[in-house]
Amino acid sequence: MMAKIAILGYGNLGRGIECAVKKTKDMELVAVFTRRDPATVKIQTPNIPVLNVSEIEKWADKIDMLVICGGSATDLPKMTPEMAAKFNVIDTFDTHANIPTHFANVDAAAKAAGKIAMISVGWDPGMFSLNRVYANAILPDGKDYTFWGKGVSQGHSDAVRRIKGVKNAKQYTCPVPEALDAVRSGSMPELTTRQKHTRLCYVVLEEGADAAYVENEIKTMKNYFDEYDTTVNFISEEEFNKNHSGLAHGGFVIRTGKTGMNNEHTHVIEYSLKLDSNPEFTTAAVIAFARAALRMKAEGKTGCFTVLDVPPAYLSEQSGEELRAHLL
Amino acid sequence: MMAKIAILGYGNLGRGIECAVKKTKDMELVAVFTRRDPATVKIQTPNIPVLNVSEIEKWADKIDMLVICGGSATDLPKMTPEMAAKFNVIDTFDTHANIPTHFANVDAAAKAAGKIAMISVGWDPGMFSLNRVYANAILPDGKDYTFWGKGVSQGHSDAVRRIKGVKNAKQYTCPVPEALDAVRSGSMPELTTRQKHTRLCYVVLEEGADAAYVENEIKTMKNYFDEYDTTVNFISEEEFNKNHSGLAHGGFVIRTGKTGMNNEHTHVIEYSLKLDSNPEFTTAAVIAFARAALRMKAEGKTGCFTVLDVPPAYLSEQSGEELRAHLL
Repeated sequence: MMAKIAILGYGNLGRGIECAVKKTKDMELVAVFTRRDPATVKIQTPNIPVLNVSEIEKWADKIDMLVICGGSATDLPKMTPEMAAKFNVIDTFDTHANIPTHFANVDAAAKAAGKIAMISVGWDPGMFSLNRVYANAILPDGKDYTFWGKGVSQGHSDAVRRIKGVKNAKQYTCPVPEALDAVRSGSMPELTTRQKHTRLCYVVLEEGADAAYVENEIKTMKNYFDEYDTTVNFISEEEFNKNHSGLAHGGFVIRTGKTGMNNEHTHVIEYSLKLDSNPEFTTAAVIAFARAALRMKAEGKTGCFTVLDVPPAYLSEQSGEELRAHLL
Repeated sequence: MMAKIAILGYGNLGRGIECAVKKTKDMELVAVFTRRDPATVKIQTPNIPVLNVSEIEKWADKIDMLVICGGSATDLPKMTPEMAAKFNVIDTFDTHANIPTHFANVDAAAKAAGKIAMISVGWDPGMFSLNRVYANAILPDGKDYTFWGKGVSQGHSDAVRRIKGVKNAKQYTCPVPEALDAVRSGSMPELTTRQKHTRLCYVVLEEGADAAYVENEIKTMKNYFDEYDTTVNFISEEEFNKNHSGLAHGGFVIRTGKTGMNNEHTHVIEYSLKLDSNPEFTTAAVIAFARAALRMKAEGKTGCFTVLDVPPAYLSEQSGEELRAHLL
């Protein structure tokens, strides 16, 4: 039986979900809900209704899993618990510090309604978290490193765009190759924030703007840039649109650890992602975990879960027998 | 409460388990069982009994998890089902083609006895399998690649040692850097066996042996070497003992896949291991999965499981709350 998937919120993530569902044989997209006027939302798949979110309650029996595609700052903390009272839900909540609170809110709502919820799916949190947990469990005596990039940081790009005189801007987070090499050597270096990443900005100025002022504002911006070596490039709008409209990202999770009676052996575990499209990879992960969540629900589980609670076999369209025969 | 761990079979794997248990705060080693005369087996930890396997039934109520450290060719297919009738057990069975049969045998024994069993733990099968399953579930439209090495292949080293005139030998499996680069580019190349790995042999000849004969026997050996580019180095026994007594290994699991309505985006997921000691890393994984198996048993689960069935959070000494707050 095909699992009925609906999307709430149709931006980059919603579009990614639409693509990811198409790649499955066991799921179908049944509706897209939006807070905007549905007439203004054009989706990629023919014959799928686009509806205002005010209609969503009528769909209570027609949706197996609602994928909530919203921002972590204000959308998801409100929407996910609210929707978990009516639907099985999944989201990509990625404000690491607020995960415990979000988890508690969603868990209470989902348990009360007898629904299942899965939060913080994607790659960080998500696949990177899984790799941290596996590597820590296997090598308890060791050290974790996470590097991000090269890729676009939406939050940092937004911060640059808020500076007076900036018309448009994109910020790339770049891992420092020497730091990566030092970590991979197994020497367990202590690395400062500055030693791990650099920041690279491409900025389009408004006419008559003061480049020196903008550059200084960026480089000294507290929390965002002041602890990093930052390079600022001023470019034309044409160049910006041509070369800096992508959403590539990626990163590295590395744990090095010691084993042996006298810690005589060193091991390096490395997981890395190189992604052409951050939202499409994120949502590809969401769809796999949506499948798993529905299987956990079928077993009678309710409440909130994260990627750390999911038996990996549940993510796959293949059966346990097939996985043991072909992928184990 | 400390989980009581016992080891059956005290070679490289048994020694690794002994080290790995020491790194935990929630497990203790209570006994080592051997098929040899216990008086000839010296373990590294003081005050732990070393006993002949004939005594093991007396320990039925004193062991939470029996770690079976034996070879996959003849030991484990017999020992794991036999012991699963009396103990919760875990093994490192690594003959991929025979996993379904081994699983069925162990599952029947464990279910009948109300015990839990976990088979094929380690890195391949094990962590590599997990990464194949995760990556396939997220990127269903893609291609898998596994590279091994640089590391010692025990089976190939044994095969070389069986050739007339060979006193000692070690065979390293080496991934071809150009093949790795091609895979990482996302171009999804079709690679032959020869294009993916080379084989490197270090051989000590017996006095008067014919080097040309040995080299030819190696390079033309069916299934083991004939499909590979093989380099044979003849070295002295001194050099062999000095430089080739380690058990380092490692490898790479890479999946590249496409997303987007028109497959316009490519993603590369890479997991790699660089291990100073293959048996110590393998057993470090075994101990983490032993913890998980005991938690699954406490939930009422019996029968045989693999790494694919384990919620990752169960591997950790930390609670779900701690993991969500610090590692998610």
